[in-house]
Amino acid sequence: MSARERLVESARELLWERGYVGTSPKTIQQRAEAGQGSMYHHFAGKEELARAAIDRTAEEMRAAVDAQLSGPGAAVERIAAYLRRERDVLRGCPVGRLTQDPDVIGTPALREPVEETFAWLRARLAAVVQEGVERGELEPSVDPASTAAAIVATLQGGYVLARAAGAPEPFDQAIAGILALLNARTVS
Amino acid sequence: MSARERLVESARELLWERGYVGTSPKTIQQRAEAGQGSMYHHFAGKEELARAAIDRTAEEMRAAVDAQLSGPGAAVERIAAYLRRERDVLRGCPVGRLTQDPDVIGTPALREPVEETFAWLRARLAAVVQEGVERGELEPSVDPASTAAAIVATLQGGYVLARAAGAPEPFDQAIAGILALLNARTVS
Repeated sequence: MSARERLVESARELLWERGYVGTSPKTIQQRAEAGQGSMYHHFAGKEELARAAIDRTAEEMRAAVDAQLSGPGAAVERIAAYLRRERDVLRGCPVGRLTQDPDVIGTPALREPVEETFAWLRARLAAVVQEGVERGELEPSVDPASTAAAIVATLQGGYVLARAAGAPEPFDQAIAGILALLNARTVS
Repeated sequence: MSARERLVESARELLWERGYVGTSPKTIQQRAEAGQGSMYHHFAGKEELARAAIDRTAEEMRAAVDAQLSGPGAAVERIAAYLRRERDVLRGCPVGRLTQDPDVIGTPALREPVEETFAWLRARLAAVVQEGVERGELEPSVDPASTAAAIVATLQGGYVLARAAGAPEPFDQAIAGILALLNARTVS
C-alpha cells in the first residue's frame, strides 16, 4: 500500500474506534507508519484526510447495502436479510457513530457525506417498502418513507443499546421487534 | 451553586456537547469557574466527576420517562406521548450519545450507569406493552421485550438520523413509522 492508502485506511479505523475528536494527526501517522511530511504532502490536514476516509467508508457501505436490497425475494425478506446480516454489533456503524462527534457535525465538509449516506439509505429502503406495497406483499396503508425511517433508526439505535449493554443481545432484540411489527403488515 | 455543583453541572453539559473524549478537566474547570484545586478537592479526577455527572443525567431521565409512562391512558397512547414529547432532537440523547464515546464504553465505572439506564428503559417500556396486551388493547402476539427494544432503538436511532440530516424531520418520520406499525397491532 502507498503511504496515501495507509493514511486513509488508518484514518478510517481510528474514526470508527475513537471518532474524529478523539483522533490526532499524530495517531493517524503512527498507525499508518507515515511521517508528518507524508501526510501533509497528500492532504491539507486532518479534515481533508478524514473526508477521504469517510467518503470511502460511506461508498463501501452503500455498495454492500445495495447488493443486499437489490436481491430477489419479497420486500420484507430482503429487509430482514439486510437487518440480520452478520455485523460486528459492538463496534457500531462506522457512519452512524460520526453523528455523535461534535466536530464532524460542526464541520460541513465532514457532515456532508454522513448526511448523504443516510438520505440515500432511507430512500433505498423506502423504495423496497414501496415495491412491497405495489406488489401486494404489504398492506396498502404502509407508508414507505416513515417505515423506512423507522427501520434505519432501529438499526442505528440497536447499536446504541448493544454498546450500552456491552453485548449484542439488545440489538438482536430490537431487530426482532421491528421485523415482527413489519411482518404483521404483510398480506397473507 | 457550590463549586461542586457547578463542576457537576458543567461536566453534564460538556459530556452532552462534546463527549468524554472531547472534554478536558481544564474545560470543565473553566466552564464551572472553579480552579484545579477545587476540582481535585471534590473529585479524584475526571472519571469520578464524569460518573457523578452521568448518574445525575440518568436519574433525571428516568424520573421524566417514568412520569410520562405511568400516566393514564392506553399503552400505545402513553408510548406515543413519550416518543413525541418535546425534545431538543439535534442535541441528541445525553445518555445515548455516551455509547459512542470509546472511553466511556471502555471504562466500567462510566459504562455502568449507561447500561443500567437502558436496561431500565427497555424493561419499563416492556411493562407498558405487556399491560397493553393484558388489557386487550394490543394483539396477544405482540412480544413485550422485543417490541420495547425496537421502540427504544427507534428513538435512539432517530437522533442519529436527525443529527446526520442537520434537521429534526427524519427523527419525526422514524417515530411516525414505529407508531404506525404499533397502532396496526392494536385491537379495534
